Amino acid sequence: MPETNHRLVLARRPTGLLDESTLRLESAPVPEPAEGQALVAVRYLSIDPTIRTWMNDAPGYLPPIGIGEVVRSGGIGEVVASRNDRYREGDLVFGMVGWQEYALAGEGAAGMQTLPSGLDPLAAINVLGVTGMTAYFGLTEVGRLVAGDVVVVSAAAGATGSTVGQLAKALGASRVIGIAGGPDKCAYLVDELGYDAAIDHSIGGIARRLHEEAPAGIDLYFDNVGGEILNAALANLAMHGRVVLCGAISAYNEATPPPGPSNYVNLIVRRGRMEGFIILDFADRYPEAQATIVPLLAEGRLKHTEHVVEGLTGAGTALNLLFSGGNVGKVVVAL
Amino acid sequence: MPETNHRLVLARRPTGLLDESTLRLESAPVPEPAEGQALVAVRYLSIDPTIRTWMNDAPGYLPPIGIGEVVRSGGIGEVVASRNDRYREGDLVFGMVGWQEYALAGEGAAGMQTLPSGLDPLAAINVLGVTGMTAYFGLTEVGRLVAGDVVVVSAAAGATGSTVGQLAKALGASRVIGIAGGPDKCAYLVDELGYDAAIDHSIGGIARRLHEEAPAGIDLYFDNVGGEILNAALANLAMHGRVVLCGAISAYNEATPPPGPSNYVNLIVRRGRMEGFIILDFADRYPEAQATIVPLLAEGRLKHTEHVVEGLTGAGTALNLLFSGGNVGKVVVAL
Repeated sequence: MPETNHRLVLARRPTGLLDESTLRLESAPVPEPAEGQALVAVRYLSIDPTIRTWMNDAPGYLPPIGIGEVVRSGGIGEVVASRNDRYREGDLVFGMVGWQEYALAGEGAAGMQTLPSGLDPLAAINVLGVTGMTAYFGLTEVGRLVAGDVVVVSAAAGATGSTVGQLAKALGASRVIGIAGGPDKCAYLVDELGYDAAIDHSIGGIARRLHEEAPAGIDLYFDNVGGEILNAALANLAMHGRVVLCGAISAYNEATPPPGPSNYVNLIVRRGRMEGFIILDFADRYPEAQATIVPLLAEGRLKHTEHVVEGLTGAGTALNLLFSGGNVGKVVVAL
Repeated sequence: MPETNHRLVLARRPTGLLDESTLRLESAPVPEPAEGQALVAVRYLSIDPTIRTWMNDAPGYLPPIGIGEVVRSGGIGEVVASRNDRYREGDLVFGMVGWQEYALAGEGAAGMQTLPSGLDPLAAINVLGVTGMTAYFGLTEVGRLVAGDVVVVSAAAGATGSTVGQLAKALGASRVIGIAGGPDKCAYLVDELGYDAAIDHSIGGIARRLHEEAPAGIDLYFDNVGGEILNAALANLAMHGRVVLCGAISAYNEATPPPGPSNYVNLIVRRGRMEGFIILDFADRYPEAQATIVPLLAEGRLKHTEHVVEGLTGAGTALNLLFSGGNVGKVVVAL
């Protein structure tokens, strides 16, 4: 077993995208598991937009990552030593591993969930992880999806978006429309993921295109981006339409917040609702979502794509990808 | 009985406030009630912000008022002739009378509700009319008010706002804070209506003042104005806070919409909800609200104030008052 734990700590808070000054690679001793703990060798990091928000010195649903602290991140690892009966050597575990090669699980350390054996770790980190849970509870609990709904999702070729559209169809939506940047992503949505239509936001005229694709209005809009796309969706909301606020990627890197959606007044005329959520609130209900998703995976009705970046030192670049739109599917760092 | 029905028709769509070119006073014959109809002599007009939105040539929850048409408006009148058993001469009725001296009720005309005898017509047009219904269903159905909530309402000295605050207290709110313009209105809220605190928005620093008055955050914000006050309330939303969108007065007179509330992203972090409604959707449930409100009126726990403008020709000025903030309480035109 190596004696060195390479890890990426936050050296300086970024003001926009991460740059060379944001992270510092450190070498530390591999930690010794205490009684009740297990040592986990990290295999994959889950790269999620929320990590960027934790780098800001602003109150959020979790405290900011401190300067000099390992970057907080979900991921999957393998148990390599254990002093806890819940974890056996060779088990794959899922949890907050951080941007490092080794992490501790168990008492006084991160709570990690043991994955069912035989599961593809990349599927697990994607549609059975935070991404899939966000899609499921956002659609069902926050969005109150009902059969026949016209559903629109933004950042539709991203990790969450690509799962949202497929899940919405599987749960009874009559029409699913994805918004993504560029013809390749749009073709992927329709040809590979079974979306009914895709709108390329890089061409512009989003509100008009939404009206063409959803002439009777949008029943459920799953927002991953905020900004002008949210505003265009609000302009096209159906009566009693619901806007699920999952993220506001377009604002994460801005020093001053962009203008809010002026079309929010449509919520009055259309009797609409706009509601936000944080997936951690649903953590005790993940098994319920996984019970729906596992059969869909087995039947091939839920495709998952990962954009794998190799090596711990690529984690910063991987995170930036989420904001430049350079990825298709879930961004993962393989260690 | 006079033979002339004076009426105000829409001559030109206003671009901001109403001016001399907006309305035209016409003289028409007093209409003859057909079989199944009653003739109503209009006594009071209910002056509501929504009338201004009907003057725009834009889709809404009701069609725009046509050029040359009598201005659509709620009001109270007295039955002066009847060919319908539901209406007897001398009855007071409530309904869409329009800005005119005489209106028809009944089959093929406006549906009007007969008021219980002995009721003060000004109380009826105010807290038992659209204003009171808006306050009640906005708080209970849309805002899901629960005992102990900290409630904030804007345009708090206006017709809807002044009822919202008092009703919220009666229904169990732990603290009610009103936002209004100027020291007189603020004193009225606290001294006359029993608000716990009032914030004068003309001084500025609304977000900071809200934080001082509601340090643990706002559970229910009843929005009557939109704009920067809505944004300040969103900044101070409590966990699982609810924003009830009742109106957006600050935007009604603008040719281009003002920026939306950039703090809507707080709905994500605070798991908040922002929802709009149109009171007409609850029309079949008005008796339920009136059953709550009538005893409060009788016990003197629900005060109502009317700002009475005399004469039909003052209706345009009365409507402008709502946007200049020149009124305290419900604006009514007495004919």
